[in-house]
Amino acid sequence: MGVVGAGQLARMLCEAASPLAVPMVVLAERPDDAAALVAPAVAFGAATDAEAVRTLAARCDVVTFDHEQVDLGALRALERAGVTVRPGTRTLRMAVDKSEMREAFSAAGLPCPPYVPLGVPGADGAGVRDIHARIERFAEAHGWPVVVKAARGGYDGKGVWPVSTPQAALEVCERAAAAATPLLAEACVDIDAELAVVVARRPDGETVVWPAVETAQLDGVCREVLYPGRLDDEVARRAAELAREVATLVDAVGVLAIELFSSRGQLLVNEIAARPHNSAHWTIEGARTSQFENHLRAVLDLPLGDTSPAARAVASVNVLGSDPGDGEGPVDPAASLAGALAVTGAHVHLYGKLARPGRKLGHVTVCGDDPGDVRARAWAAARALGTPLPASLGIEQS
Amino acid sequence: MGVVGAGQLARMLCEAASPLAVPMVVLAERPDDAAALVAPAVAFGAATDAEAVRTLAARCDVVTFDHEQVDLGALRALERAGVTVRPGTRTLRMAVDKSEMREAFSAAGLPCPPYVPLGVPGADGAGVRDIHARIERFAEAHGWPVVVKAARGGYDGKGVWPVSTPQAALEVCERAAAAATPLLAEACVDIDAELAVVVARRPDGETVVWPAVETAQLDGVCREVLYPGRLDDEVARRAAELAREVATLVDAVGVLAIELFSSRGQLLVNEIAARPHNSAHWTIEGARTSQFENHLRAVLDLPLGDTSPAARAVASVNVLGSDPGDGEGPVDPAASLAGALAVTGAHVHLYGKLARPGRKLGHVTVCGDDPGDVRARAWAAARALGTPLPASLGIEQS
Repeated sequence: MGVVGAGQLARMLCEAASPLAVPMVVLAERPDDAAALVAPAVAFGAATDAEAVRTLAARCDVVTFDHEQVDLGALRALERAGVTVRPGTRTLRMAVDKSEMREAFSAAGLPCPPYVPLGVPGADGAGVRDIHARIERFAEAHGWPVVVKAARGGYDGKGVWPVSTPQAALEVCERAAAAATPLLAEACVDIDAELAVVVARRPDGETVVWPAVETAQLDGVCREVLYPGRLDDEVARRAAELAREVATLVDAVGVLAIELFSSRGQLLVNEIAARPHNSAHWTIEGARTSQFENHLRAVLDLPLGDTSPAARAVASVNVLGSDPGDGEGPVDPAASLAGALAVTGAHVHLYGKLARPGRKLGHVTVCGDDPGDVRARAWAAARALGTPLPASLGIEQS
Repeated sequence: MGVVGAGQLARMLCEAASPLAVPMVVLAERPDDAAALVAPAVAFGAATDAEAVRTLAARCDVVTFDHEQVDLGALRALERAGVTVRPGTRTLRMAVDKSEMREAFSAAGLPCPPYVPLGVPGADGAGVRDIHARIERFAEAHGWPVVVKAARGGYDGKGVWPVSTPQAALEVCERAAAAATPLLAEACVDIDAELAVVVARRPDGETVVWPAVETAQLDGVCREVLYPGRLDDEVARRAAELAREVATLVDAVGVLAIELFSSRGQLLVNEIAARPHNSAHWTIEGARTSQFENHLRAVLDLPLGDTSPAARAVASVNVLGSDPGDGEGPVDPAASLAGALAVTGAHVHLYGKLARPGRKLGHVTVCGDDPGDVRARAWAAARALGTPLPASLGIEQS
């Protein structure tokens, strides 16, 4: 199997591939990319370099993905040439472009926040003014603040700009114009909880769903994932149903993650990702089959594994880089392993990435019976690895 | 970490090392050795080649092992030169040489079958006659059959010769003389059950023990491992206690496996292995921390993980090569994955090895609530991968 991209998702795909004896090749930009450090075979090149992707495809039976920063045209050409690309470009199109996703979901009657596609602000002032005027009209209907988003290329909170005033909106438009970034605007909905549902789907439509989880994002970066979180059974059931509808609509193959808002009792689809996703790292130990193994199984058209939870409560906390400001530079989590492993039940996953403040360097999962206990232990281990503790999550300092 | 040897144990160590971001180098004889196919770095050479092991050691902070076919003298020289070798040669000595192990255990009062060390039958006839006479005397005291064993170099039933007559004993002596194989003889004890206990031990003596399991060997090859098997709590408790005594006696660092016989209500130590062991593959999914992760943690002197079982019942069945005799050659398990993955809850592990009849190619683990159910499912998946079903285990044909 060939993987376009060599970040932590590709790395964890390699970890799942070894027991199944599935030979992996990852397309890496650098030899120290997370997956390039452990993959049995590495090809070098950018995900947007059609020639590099073609060379990768020539070495594999099937091509899959670690991220969405891909060249859809080049992938379509590969598909036409008979290469098995999973998920296919029909699915990727919607994962790559938020405007396309919103249009398709709205047309299908799937619940989304109110939105308006804006296109690319023209390089000339007229285009910027035009788009800015459309944001103001949208705000008149839905109120400020408005969430302006890059339709393409955003991730981990990058490319999402909540704006509270016409002036702030204008600044976003001007920056987007300079970078030729296509935009859309969404209403800022009241959020009771953020949740995620991850599914795996085979080419014939067979679909399995992991239990819904509650997620906490800060500055657009996922900080913790809790099963079952504060989600009641009915919300979890509806979220799973919605996820199945989305998977069918986008004709997913492999893992598809659906991020949702629970807003005044209503579920709204926020984002989708057509690949393994941060919100399901907990499934490595917390479910009978991990998202990484089921992604491989789905993409290889093999029977899918049991997605039941393996424990009553599971917490997964991201390990983020931090700089204590002592002149020693960022904390190296690999040098702090002992502290994290001393936490009972802490399953530590490090991605082999160089520490930088705010960078996702790994995650820790704890399974158990009590939600508060597993959450506290997962945070204790993540903190031992240098993760800053956000005050807003209400975790106690220990 | 450097691993001497690149079989399936080294492969599964690599799988456990990636999430902890522990960089691995394996010493392989061939590029298609099980671990060489997936390890991030591979050195080539024989485990008995002092120069190859020295070169490996120069690339690592610590050297560990995939098997016992090592050159103790070369390792002692490395230790003297300041290389961290774990387990150390004090431990390896007893794992490498069954006579040394028996002498040390007997001296410490650990229960073993009656035995007599025999040394190497001399190349001249006199030596063979002398050793043969000693086997006969041993049989007079303990009865026929006698189990003659190679003191060094045996594995998976190779190097174990049960002999029922003086003539059969003579033939073993002659073959051993030709190969310069040191021998020992053991009484053939009545076996109620075969069991194994695996421990992990840090350099400071901190030791964790996985629950005892029942194992089934046929022709010296492990076929299945059952937790809890037919072991009652008291036997399991005594076995764990004995395992701790053994670990302390041999000054183990890393994983140590102790194979035991339950004989007329008494536990006897059969064999030890100073490395991860087939009898604990079930811990990958069946325990909170796997033997592979705890071997890494112990050898790196990091806190050890929880060894509690993750389910009420766990069955692990080895995938062995078979040849259906249809002229197509041995069954390739990688080509039969779909059938095995269709079995609910089957965790399939393939080692990437070329199929040959009788060769260990992988294993399947199933966790659940009912011992009979998990055993049936594990066998169903192993059978789908081509494993021949031994009539003597009483598994129903499905």
